[in-house]
Amino acid sequence: MTESERPLDALNAARGKRVIVELKNNKQIAGKLKAFDIHINTVLDEAEERADGEVKRKLGTVFIRGDTIIIISPE
Amino acid sequence: MTESERPLDALNAARGKRVIVELKNNKQIAGKLKAFDIHINTVLDEAEERADGEVKRKLGTVFIRGDTIIIISPE
Amino acid sequence: MTESERPLDALNAARGKRVIVELKNNKQIAGKLKAFDIHINTVLDEAEERADGEVKRKLGTVFIRGDTIIIISPE
Amino acid sequence: MTESERPLDALNAARGKRVIVELKNNKQIAGKLKAFDIHINTVLDEAEERADGEVKRKLGTVFIRGDTIIIISPE
Amino acid sequence: MTESERPLDALNAARGKRVIVELKNNKQIAGKLKAFDIHINTVLDEAEERADGEVKRKLGTVFIRGDTIIIISPE
Amino acid sequence: MTESERPLDALNAARGKRVIVELKNNKQIAGKLKAFDIHINTVLDEAEERADGEVKRKLGTVFIRGDTIIIISPE
Amino acid sequence: MTESERPLDALNAARGKRVIVELKNNKQIAGKLKAFDIHINTVLDEAEERADGEVKRKLGTVFIRGDTIIIISPE
Repeated sequence: MTESERPLDALNAARGKRVIVELKNNKQIAGKLKAFDIHINTVLDEAEERADGEVKRKLGTVFIRGDTIIIISPE
Repeated sequence: MTESERPLDALNAARGKRVIVELKNNKQIAGKLKAFDIHINTVLDEAEERADGEVKRKLGTVFIRGDTIIIISPE
Repeated sequence: MTESERPLDALNAARGKRVIVELKNNKQIAGKLKAFDIHINTVLDEAEERADGEVKRKLGTVFIRGDTIIIISPE
Repeated sequence: MTESERPLDALNAARGKRVIVELKNNKQIAGKLKAFDIHINTVLDEAEERADGEVKRKLGTVFIRGDTIIIISPE
Repeated sequence: MTESERPLDALNAARGKRVIVELKNNKQIAGKLKAFDIHINTVLDEAEERADGEVKRKLGTVFIRGDTIIIISPE
Repeated sequence: MTESERPLDALNAARGKRVIVELKNNKQIAGKLKAFDIHINTVLDEAEERADGEVKRKLGTVFIRGDTIIIISPE
Repeated sequence: MTESERPLDALNAARGKRVIVELKNNKQIAGKLKAFDIHINTVLDEAEERADGEVKRKLGTVFIRGDTIIIISPE
């Protein structure tokens, strides 16, 4: 770990892998991390909305506005 | 997928196609994606407001302020 | 539709026409779109506040702060 | 109406006149519009707080932080 | 009143005088206005927290973050 | 008091002294003011969380994000 | 302590150490501080979500959006 490590480096390392995005409205979107920007606007492929670990809805490719995101973690 | 892929590229690929925009007030607006900007201000044509999968209201061409948007996904 | 179409173009096309502005506090303001800026600060002429389709109050010329706006659609 | 009309022009036209400012906390402040800036920070003279059309409190000259404002309309 | 009058001029005129600051959490802080900046971050001397016109707590010199402020008026 | 007095000057004068920081979630953090910046991001040493004047938790050195702060006053 | 001490210096001193991050939704994420930026976007390794002192979920490496953070303190 170097001093220059930045949070977006961690997101970059997760590109192409499945992640879970938790939103401020308590929903979870799981999918393959395709893209993000400095606002944490995020695009997931093969995404699905979940509640209590169960799939509620298939979303396909989804754009998530960054300011609605709380955390992003590996699936 | 290249490293330079950005979230707005995904929105750009959806131009002219039907999308569902979910808002922070729990409403959904479905319509044809006509325009968006870096704030995610979005314009949909042939738009309608939905609740629980049913059409509540026809809106025609609608301007949606970006900061009220949670996710944008294909219809 | 060209790639360069922007959301504010849609608002510009609505200048002088009657629109409905929905606010984050669940109120609706209907009126003739007179002016707007990049923050979506908006001025309506001959405006009235509505609830459930009924006129609650005549407002005349009203200034609406952009960050309180959810959507703007034709009346 | 010209294309260059901007929302702050409408506020400028109201300088020195009585207006009603509606706040996000559901309160209304009525008074004579003395000053405003691009954040819509606003100063009213001879201001009073109202609820349901009745005067609750005399405020004198009041500074209102712009981000708490929903709409400004003529009294 | 000149066209160039700005909201912060009104605050500047209140420097050294007692004011009441109303906060978004419904509390009121009364005190002598010592300093403010463009974010409306504000410092009051001899400040006290009030509720329903009664003193709840003596605060001394208090720093108030601007984005929590609704209105500032003379005591 | 000079016209050039600014709110951050008051915080600077409190460096190394014990302060109480009130947060938007109604919690209070008391501690020795170690550092702050223009966003009012704040670091306290020997900090403790309080509720109703009683210590709930020892926190040690704590970083407080500025946008969660309402007021900072002397202990 | 020098006048030039800044809040991010305190976070920098905590790199590689275990911290507890409290979020605006009342959740706590504990983990090893790996990275942060000026928005306080934060990455923790070996992270876990906690409630009332008990582990609710293992998260692995987690990205936390800065604007959801209230405080960061040593574990």
